[in-house]
Amino acid sequence: MKHTISVLVENKFGVLARITTLFAARGFNIDSLAVGETEDPDVSRMTIVVKGDEAVLDQVTKQLNKLVDIIKVNDFKDVEYIERGLALVKITVKNATRDAIMKTIGVFRTRVVDLSQDSVVVEITGDEDKINAFIEAVKPFGIKEVCQTGIVAISRGK
Amino acid sequence: MKHTISVLVENKFGVLARITTLFAARGFNIDSLAVGETEDPDVSRMTIVVKGDEAVLDQVTKQLNKLVDIIKVNDFKDVEYIERGLALVKITVKNATRDAIMKTIGVFRTRVVDLSQDSVVVEITGDEDKINAFIEAVKPFGIKEVCQTGIVAISRGK
Repeated sequence: MKHTISVLVENKFGVLARITTLFAARGFNIDSLAVGETEDPDVSRMTIVVKGDEAVLDQVTKQLNKLVDIIKVNDFKDVEYIERGLALVKITVKNATRDAIMKTIGVFRTRVVDLSQDSVVVEITGDEDKINAFIEAVKPFGIKEVCQTGIVAISRGK
Repeated sequence: MKHTISVLVENKFGVLARITTLFAARGFNIDSLAVGETEDPDVSRMTIVVKGDEAVLDQVTKQLNKLVDIIKVNDFKDVEYIERGLALVKITVKNATRDAIMKTIGVFRTRVVDLSQDSVVVEITGDEDKINAFIEAVKPFGIKEVCQTGIVAISRGK
């Protein structure tokens, strides 16, 4: 089962290594990881998506809570939340496929961020399913490169 | 000085921990980290933004290249590239500030992803400067939460 966990940490040296090591030691492969600053420059937020056993993950969460430099651990088990990630996708463009590509990237409401003779780079945002659906849709045209951020999650307002 | 490094890795257990530990051991604090799948499900891409000494970073890059499970390390030193990240920002909404907030989020071409009685969640994409400028712009209204993905980078087409 897929789990999304958000960890607020003091923006200190080595915290990231300690957290990723903890997950590895418990046998979790991290599918997606996003680390960025918050509104407070001394505090960073890590959003971690892992698949695995819930009981073991509860233990990991407890261990995380004990680490110095960790301010708060939040799993999104019992709250309504929104997930978003971003992907930059560089697609091969040929004269024969140009129109079909432009139509597809329009359907997905992407933004074109770079265009050259033989490629186009588009920015797409959405949850994991939407991003994956877009990648599948443009695969037949030829993908040169995919760069994905990890997923971030935020609870809905009341 | 700020450096953006992209690392293609085999999607295997513990790789992330090894890489983050390597950076920590050399004294680099990772400002932003994005880990996501590529078009090949067996391969993930890590995009790392660090500040620090270029000579030391060159050593780290060389060490990275030696690690098993690492396919390719790319620093964006000598290429033109595009950087993008995503932030979800939950802003406090009051009757007195509602119009001003809507105007500000319009200027930055954000997308509203959730709206409730007392808050709005918007999605903004851009480079680090644009995202930071937006966060500064809405700070006076009251920020409840900021969730940022790391930055990803892709080279421009020729």
